[in-house]
Amino acid sequence: MSFINVTPECHFSIQNLPYGVFSTKDNTNRRIGVAIGDQILDLSAVVQLFNGPILSKNQNVFLQPVLNDFMALGRQAWTEARQTLQKLLSSSESTLRDNADLRKIAFVNQSDATMYLPANIGDYTDFYSSKNHAYNVGVMFRGPENALMPNWTHLPVGYHGRASSVVVSGTDIRRPNGQTRPDETKPPVFGPCKLMDIELEMAFLTGPATKLGDPIPIAEAENHIFGMVVMNDWSARDIQKWEYVPLGPFLGKNLGTSISPWVVTMDALAPFKVPNAKQEPTPLPYLQHDDQYSFDIKLDVTLQCHDLKEPVTVSRSNFKYMYWTMKQQLAHHTVTGCNINPGDLMASGTISGETPDTFGSLLELCWKGTKPLDLGNGVTRKFLQDGDEVILTGYCQGDGYRVGFGSCTGKILPAHPI
Amino acid sequence: MSFINVTPECHFSIQNLPYGVFSTKDNTNRRIGVAIGDQILDLSAVVQLFNGPILSKNQNVFLQPVLNDFMALGRQAWTEARQTLQKLLSSSESTLRDNADLRKIAFVNQSDATMYLPANIGDYTDFYSSKNHAYNVGVMFRGPENALMPNWTHLPVGYHGRASSVVVSGTDIRRPNGQTRPDETKPPVFGPCKLMDIELEMAFLTGPATKLGDPIPIAEAENHIFGMVVMNDWSARDIQKWEYVPLGPFLGKNLGTSISPWVVTMDALAPFKVPNAKQEPTPLPYLQHDDQYSFDIKLDVTLQCHDLKEPVTVSRSNFKYMYWTMKQQLAHHTVTGCNINPGDLMASGTISGETPDTFGSLLELCWKGTKPLDLGNGVTRKFLQDGDEVILTGYCQGDGYRVGFGSCTGKILPAHPI
Repeated sequence: MSFINVTPECHFSIQNLPYGVFSTKDNTNRRIGVAIGDQILDLSAVVQLFNGPILSKNQNVFLQPVLNDFMALGRQAWTEARQTLQKLLSSSESTLRDNADLRKIAFVNQSDATMYLPANIGDYTDFYSSKNHAYNVGVMFRGPENALMPNWTHLPVGYHGRASSVVVSGTDIRRPNGQTRPDETKPPVFGPCKLMDIELEMAFLTGPATKLGDPIPIAEAENHIFGMVVMNDWSARDIQKWEYVPLGPFLGKNLGTSISPWVVTMDALAPFKVPNAKQEPTPLPYLQHDDQYSFDIKLDVTLQCHDLKEPVTVSRSNFKYMYWTMKQQLAHHTVTGCNINPGDLMASGTISGETPDTFGSLLELCWKGTKPLDLGNGVTRKFLQDGDEVILTGYCQGDGYRVGFGSCTGKILPAHPI
Repeated sequence: MSFINVTPECHFSIQNLPYGVFSTKDNTNRRIGVAIGDQILDLSAVVQLFNGPILSKNQNVFLQPVLNDFMALGRQAWTEARQTLQKLLSSSESTLRDNADLRKIAFVNQSDATMYLPANIGDYTDFYSSKNHAYNVGVMFRGPENALMPNWTHLPVGYHGRASSVVVSGTDIRRPNGQTRPDETKPPVFGPCKLMDIELEMAFLTGPATKLGDPIPIAEAENHIFGMVVMNDWSARDIQKWEYVPLGPFLGKNLGTSISPWVVTMDALAPFKVPNAKQEPTPLPYLQHDDQYSFDIKLDVTLQCHDLKEPVTVSRSNFKYMYWTMKQQLAHHTVTGCNINPGDLMASGTISGETPDTFGSLLELCWKGTKPLDLGNGVTRKFLQDGDEVILTGYCQGDGYRVGFGSCTGKILPAHPI
């Protein structure tokens, strides 16, 4: 229990304590905070209270405008910080609870804060690790017999994304203009994207750097996974379809990728581990691990459209539907010697369950535009319209508390005139 | 003419003046320098001499350990810096020529310097813009009728690469272990890459940042192109072949990408413009420009193998063989609103001419391993062996002088034992 009030539905319990970067009107410096209830504990105001063996010598990491330096310290430091924070915020601890002056400078209302990207993201990778999603897309484009490519069950397929266009939740997303070929018998055309889609994803941020040439063995992968966010990998399907052979998605994806501002640590997620997906065939040894590293994280996709009175939830998915684990993703990513840096972002790919109400993209939910979503009041959607807002949320349900990610939102602006 | 001696074959004439980042034994700080003859002018020692209207107010950009801040200043500042440097290094200018004390602190022998990446590379993109290369690879994998994908002549195909694994020339490259499927009737296997290849490329580094959602019109593209380097995009062909569908190359490429340390500016390259490739069909308007933006840059690929007495040049190519220009690449890259930052790296893709002696990869030079290269003395190569060193060079030939890139080298280390 914390001396800060936390309702049972609140995502930011004392069991959670996610990290983010924020500023306020009174203090426009970007600084690191921890969410608790509807408050933020400003770590820059309490660095002196981190008196454990590692952090007492590294208090400066909490004076930075991004989390990279803290991420670089490694797992022991992360766990030490969590222990210190759980103690400081506990109802039985007087340090903050009984010091009104300190509380006044240390706490900020979340509603008064502007959030930023939690880290400088050096590289962003997007995997494709939900079997249901890969299968659905494969069926739509190649038929059920060839739905999964031969490599899919042998390795976590992934590709490099664009790091510069990763933005924090709440950033508007401009509908892109681009080149498409709607009629294959005619030349391509230029104009606004007509098949604007979402991708419900989660992503992890990495910890300590590695050297080029040195893989991360799967047994050590956990030491390099700092925490997770909810992510919307906005996708221009018509642009993507025309451009993506043979080198993969490019402009269809780099128009913007939104992440939730609060990074939930792996320590906070540990109680929500569930059995890993059964993998058949058994992967090669470098991808094998026995311990559970799947997580029961409930995920919702909600649309707020200008012609709707209230937001409508169109999908309820779960991170546990993933086929490949994050440990497998990281071991695979680095097996050829690719080096990582603190704050690299590695995403799951669209997360879809088996049933249509759990699909993580409009492409699947509307089955390539053939089954429009009925949002009530005569409002339907196949793909996103200008002004539509998409709200992704995620949380783990504990016994009387939640460990949540808050939301990842974005609204579609009209394309620039051409 | 410079008061520094520059031979006609030297890449670093007073017409060139490329920028790089270096350190020395005596001063281990990374600092910005300009190559001239066999010397480096240490800009951190002469910042006070940049007295033009823009740089006099921004001298601090030359006190940084990377070029990003200078790149961010834009084209007018780049041209002003060039004018100042050409004056300072001219044989008719006394400021440095006649000041022995200042010369002593301002000049460093290139042989005494350690070179670094010239910029913090936020994002790295690799295009696929040599038609001969795309055709050759297409013929090998799909036959001559389907060699070029339908989109290839309509847009500069490209993909996002891994920025963290871009390294400076001279960095050893570890042969990767990875997953391959040499026999399609059997499961994939794990082990050292057997088809280790090079890709002869050039790349440009970007200037001022743009905002997410705002494209760079092709008429303004030149304002965002700072300069160029020679690049080797090391490729594990067997890993690439198995992994790349449907999302593109991933681990086959992120084991290391080497660039030459000296960034040659577009002002230095301007005298070597040649007519652009004829494009049929005519691209869409957002990709059209009339002015010349192809460049006559001679490129060599040389192998130094442990069983050879002397290095052997195996390919002589030229940047003028490119189909898509850098302006077209940048306009396309940003047309959907992808933002760029100073120091982003955008590469050409493998550069191959029409004839076999101009091909830019071993895959093409040995035609998928069917025609081993005869290096003399009974030595042959299909793909790279451990200990092989690859030396890429590039220069423009002026009348009695050269504007060159120096070399981009790397040696293959044996794979880690598995």
